Amino acid sequence: MTRHDPYPSRTGGRAQMLPRKDPVVCSTRSSEGPLSPSGIEAFERDGFLVIDGFFDPAETRSLQQEASRLPETLADSRAPEVIFEPGGGAVRSVFAIHRSSTTFAKLVTTSRLVEAVMQILGSEVYVHQSRINYKPAFRGREFYWHSDFETWHVEDGMPRMRAVSVSLNLRENSAHNGPLMLVPGSHKHYISCEGHTPERNYEKSLREQVCGVPEMSILEDLVERGGIVAPLGPPGSVVLFDCNTMHGSNGNITPWPRSNVFLVYNSVENALEAPYSGQQPRPEYIASRDFTPIPAGA
Amino acid sequence: MTRHDPYPSRTGGRAQMLPRKDPVVCSTRSSEGPLSPSGIEAFERDGFLVIDGFFDPAETRSLQQEASRLPETLADSRAPEVIFEPGGGAVRSVFAIHRSSTTFAKLVTTSRLVEAVMQILGSEVYVHQSRINYKPAFRGREFYWHSDFETWHVEDGMPRMRAVSVSLNLRENSAHNGPLMLVPGSHKHYISCEGHTPERNYEKSLREQVCGVPEMSILEDLVERGGIVAPLGPPGSVVLFDCNTMHGSNGNITPWPRSNVFLVYNSVENALEAPYSGQQPRPEYIASRDFTPIPAGA
Repeated sequence: MTRHDPYPSRTGGRAQMLPRKDPVVCSTRSSEGPLSPSGIEAFERDGFLVIDGFFDPAETRSLQQEASRLPETLADSRAPEVIFEPGGGAVRSVFAIHRSSTTFAKLVTTSRLVEAVMQILGSEVYVHQSRINYKPAFRGREFYWHSDFETWHVEDGMPRMRAVSVSLNLRENSAHNGPLMLVPGSHKHYISCEGHTPERNYEKSLREQVCGVPEMSILEDLVERGGIVAPLGPPGSVVLFDCNTMHGSNGNITPWPRSNVFLVYNSVENALEAPYSGQQPRPEYIASRDFTPIPAGA
Repeated sequence: MTRHDPYPSRTGGRAQMLPRKDPVVCSTRSSEGPLSPSGIEAFERDGFLVIDGFFDPAETRSLQQEASRLPETLADSRAPEVIFEPGGGAVRSVFAIHRSSTTFAKLVTTSRLVEAVMQILGSEVYVHQSRINYKPAFRGREFYWHSDFETWHVEDGMPRMRAVSVSLNLRENSAHNGPLMLVPGSHKHYISCEGHTPERNYEKSLREQVCGVPEMSILEDLVERGGIVAPLGPPGSVVLFDCNTMHGSNGNITPWPRSNVFLVYNSVENALEAPYSGQQPRPEYIASRDFTPIPAGA
């Protein structure tokens, strides 16, 4: 029996803009938690919420130090979690940082962060993915437009839109160093992509996205409706965003790296199944299959 | 007899920051012309001057139309003046537009533009180079940091720093679509580069700069002193900048192209000699050797 696919993409059909079938904010606990009613409303409407000063300078400094230390320790081990920029050289990302570092293991259980995410998702949550993006100075390359959910659905088997990403600025996110750009309102549409997923696509796509790329005319349409917002912020600020919000960033030729920590919380009621591409699941360090909930108030 | 080189670069030595040996504003005519004393002062100090609304909406629209038309006409002829993005496909630049288009031929003689440049350079001027940079939507690639003068000196034989560039925005230059970034004050230092110039370097460098690239620690030093400014502006605004101001731009993944017209005026007292690289001069469409002055009040 063929499994029903609520969000088909890369199935050989044409690129399409389809309606979202899941709530953005689950009503169950939306009034219980650290986010204000206007914060919840903005998240529902725009698909993201910016909170300046979420981490204080001392907390942020300790995270910065750990982030600088990590690639050095891991580069020697040739760990697959370390992704290099296309063309080699600089480290682009390190994955599964909450498994290789006690500092980041503690970070993902920060109670006011977990409670904010639970307030949006209306259930207990677990960590689907964690990583640092370094966006190095001078030669940091772009991250092309994408909805994370499209990839997580097709390549990881995440069934529904019920996950929240947290982007934590380790360095100043300025107008010049390739800041995260989001398209407000884009999370309410599912953008299915053309083509098929090649086997072991992640080995290439984490360096440079070539598959699961939304069609240009659809991007134009989304941006015409919602515009583009690049929340600028000092180190320690966070952006919470829906798993289906269209986002990307330009390259960075400035001398200022634009590193950020990226944490993804998924609802325990939305645990991964077999990938909708029909292929093997991606490795644990990219898409965890340990669905143990993070204890509230850890 | 070996010719003295006031600004050596790519001569096999180490990268260096050397003092500028030429005035930024020539005193001869600096009080005669359309630029205010404070405008002249800002240009001298920062190495650039932004003037919003230099061209009115009707003038700008006609230039936009001509800019859209040009690559179509020229693409068929496989003219060498048409430069494609690395990886092929989209048009990155079209050179010598004042020779292939009567609209742009007229543009370069616009009297208030030429008079502003003459006010800075203190002599009659001619057009050293003209081009459109398209910075196309979605896939526009970065222009890495460079001083134009370094290339014009080494590859074209421009003897001294006595030229001014004009960047005219054909489209909105927003924070998101890879705007021109300049380093204030950088024009007062000459950044010599490592390595040697390969023969026919321009065939590659106009697509992606690999030679004449300033050293990272020197860029850090310049930015630490002067910061980075990205003048944003609507279509029709212009940036006048010194030939030695360090500048560059990030890529552009937005649906908004960031096309601009780029005109370079050189003093007739600074006419090109043999390239300091010792190689053949670059073609006329990149570096004109017709030094006929533009008549004032054309």
